[in-house]
Amino acid sequence: MYDKIIDNNNPHSNLKVQPPINQPSQINKECLAHLKPKKRSVEEYVGGILEGNRTILSQAITLVESSLYEHQHMAQQIIEKCLPYAGKSIRVGITGVPGVGKSTTIEALGTSLTAKGHRLAVLAIDPSSEKTKGSILGDKTRMETLANDPNSFIRPSPSAGSLGGVARKTREIIVLCEAAGFDIVFVETVGVGQSEVAVASMVDFFLLLQLANAGDELQGIKRGIMEMADAISINKADGDNKQLCELAAQQYRNALALFPASESGWKPVVFTSSAYTLEGIDKIWENVTKYVQITKANGYFESKRNEQNLRILSETIDFYLKEGFYNNDKIKDLLEKSRQDVLANKISAYVAAQNLVREYFQTK
Amino acid sequence: MYDKIIDNNNPHSNLKVQPPINQPSQINKECLAHLKPKKRSVEEYVGGILEGNRTILSQAITLVESSLYEHQHMAQQIIEKCLPYAGKSIRVGITGVPGVGKSTTIEALGTSLTAKGHRLAVLAIDPSSEKTKGSILGDKTRMETLANDPNSFIRPSPSAGSLGGVARKTREIIVLCEAAGFDIVFVETVGVGQSEVAVASMVDFFLLLQLANAGDELQGIKRGIMEMADAISINKADGDNKQLCELAAQQYRNALALFPASESGWKPVVFTSSAYTLEGIDKIWENVTKYVQITKANGYFESKRNEQNLRILSETIDFYLKEGFYNNDKIKDLLEKSRQDVLANKISAYVAAQNLVREYFQTK
Repeated sequence: MYDKIIDNNNPHSNLKVQPPINQPSQINKECLAHLKPKKRSVEEYVGGILEGNRTILSQAITLVESSLYEHQHMAQQIIEKCLPYAGKSIRVGITGVPGVGKSTTIEALGTSLTAKGHRLAVLAIDPSSEKTKGSILGDKTRMETLANDPNSFIRPSPSAGSLGGVARKTREIIVLCEAAGFDIVFVETVGVGQSEVAVASMVDFFLLLQLANAGDELQGIKRGIMEMADAISINKADGDNKQLCELAAQQYRNALALFPASESGWKPVVFTSSAYTLEGIDKIWENVTKYVQITKANGYFESKRNEQNLRILSETIDFYLKEGFYNNDKIKDLLEKSRQDVLANKISAYVAAQNLVREYFQTK
Repeated sequence: MYDKIIDNNNPHSNLKVQPPINQPSQINKECLAHLKPKKRSVEEYVGGILEGNRTILSQAITLVESSLYEHQHMAQQIIEKCLPYAGKSIRVGITGVPGVGKSTTIEALGTSLTAKGHRLAVLAIDPSSEKTKGSILGDKTRMETLANDPNSFIRPSPSAGSLGGVARKTREIIVLCEAAGFDIVFVETVGVGQSEVAVASMVDFFLLLQLANAGDELQGIKRGIMEMADAISINKADGDNKQLCELAAQQYRNALALFPASESGWKPVVFTSSAYTLEGIDKIWENVTKYVQITKANGYFESKRNEQNLRILSETIDFYLKEGFYNNDKIKDLLEKSRQDVLANKISAYVAAQNLVREYFQTK
């Protein structure tokens, strides 16, 4: 029934604009979709996704996020069938500390992209989101125009599990979104902790939003993160803050100039932006486009994607090898003893490790 | 014969001072020791090491560094027997870019430490040293006084193999040196690349030497490395350079203040030093001593060492698990096919990894 009321994908729907108050909104509809995925066959899911049906896409993502075995099994089959249609979007990672204005920037940039005919999927990686489930609604209300834009699709971070699990699911969700015809994917993350590394490993271009901190420009610099950035935008460059932002931008430029050159052939750029006046927002996409042009021409774009895929292959192999080892009953018994012996200097850690692995393969 | 001529360990030797020109020097003696280790039993090695016999220690290290199976087998037995006597030194990592004055600083600090009755081992990690084997002699000639000091023992970086291999061997050499009664171990590394991470994982205290670069203080800051440092010394603070060094020190202090607090309870310190005037050299050891006092009192010293040991255990387990997998003949055949399928978007990297690991365990 909800499908009929606000199917933004259906060109015949009379509700492509903001739904009236008290009517179930897009947000509510997708929340319900999470709770009760309809029983569909793999083929129905894949067909729906390839047609760009957002409701079915949303339900398929729910399967990806589910930890139930039967859901996972189905999800893998759907992903497998979607893979040949994936990979054609431009994937952009966006990070910055809370309060830097990620949502407003995405809203401003995203709206201008969909106005130009692009179809935009906005995903998020936030392993801490389990604690703050309210942010699901929060994100969407902060991106109100995009949330109701038929050419955009906003999906909050999978809330369950480790960073590794969340990253895996997000990569799989990118595949589904690309198969559904989204030609731009934003992956947003909070600029603290390890999630940026995960995002950088799944995107083509990495944008860092920063604030100008009056008098203390170093404060905002996340050292490791800054080195990953293809562009830095000093945000909230409006009103009295504009000059400070320009000054900060110059300082970041100086700092970036000291970094070793990237093999991409791209020199990270720094500019200022304001999601309020919209000044500089277009520069973000201008630079993404330039980057894609340069790196597609010199082959880096493809080689980076290949490298990302092969790294997932080897990291996942590593994960399963370790999982088998550490869940082995005999190893569980022996490992604690080995740890104690190592800590007591009775055996070297190297020899202990060798013995454990030998033992493991004898019991297999 | 050489043993008799310049056994610096022998209190009855009449050659504890600088050997006369044209006589085989300490350097030459140890070079010869590398080339022709005598046939000794494990017990003889261990006995010699525990007595503090430098020639036998040196030969045992040569076994550790050897890639021959029989040498490795013997080395592991020696290490095993030395372990109960190890762990009692203070381990200090020293890094800085080439030209910063690591050798002269180690020479100055080391000489003052042995004068106070300490026994100092100076090791190095430099995975690039295979290319520049000359640096073995170079290091020692730059530390001439220490090289001929009976209470110090200088050993260049194991030159063979990967960083992981070099790091492992260096950890094992630390064990042997500690068993031989050296109560201070310096591990030197060049301040570029990944070797600092390896050094940080095997020492108690990490010292970063920096230069004051007139007008451009940021240049010297290695972001990742700076965060690892327990102390930063701005070196070559003599003559006209002294004021610049003080200025740089203040800037580093400001930058460090922005870092999150370490769980060690220790706040990284910044000072200036000169291996030429010797001013500030004593501050290095003053701070190491303070650090050891504080972290031994709050338990961090021991918990860090335990953590280092347990990390080696799990990293080595990981290494052997992967080694078994990637050297499996069936996997070798299948892996290349899987990589091609992943790159052609025929299969997801996750599923490919799962399949490979399943296949691997079926053939075991």
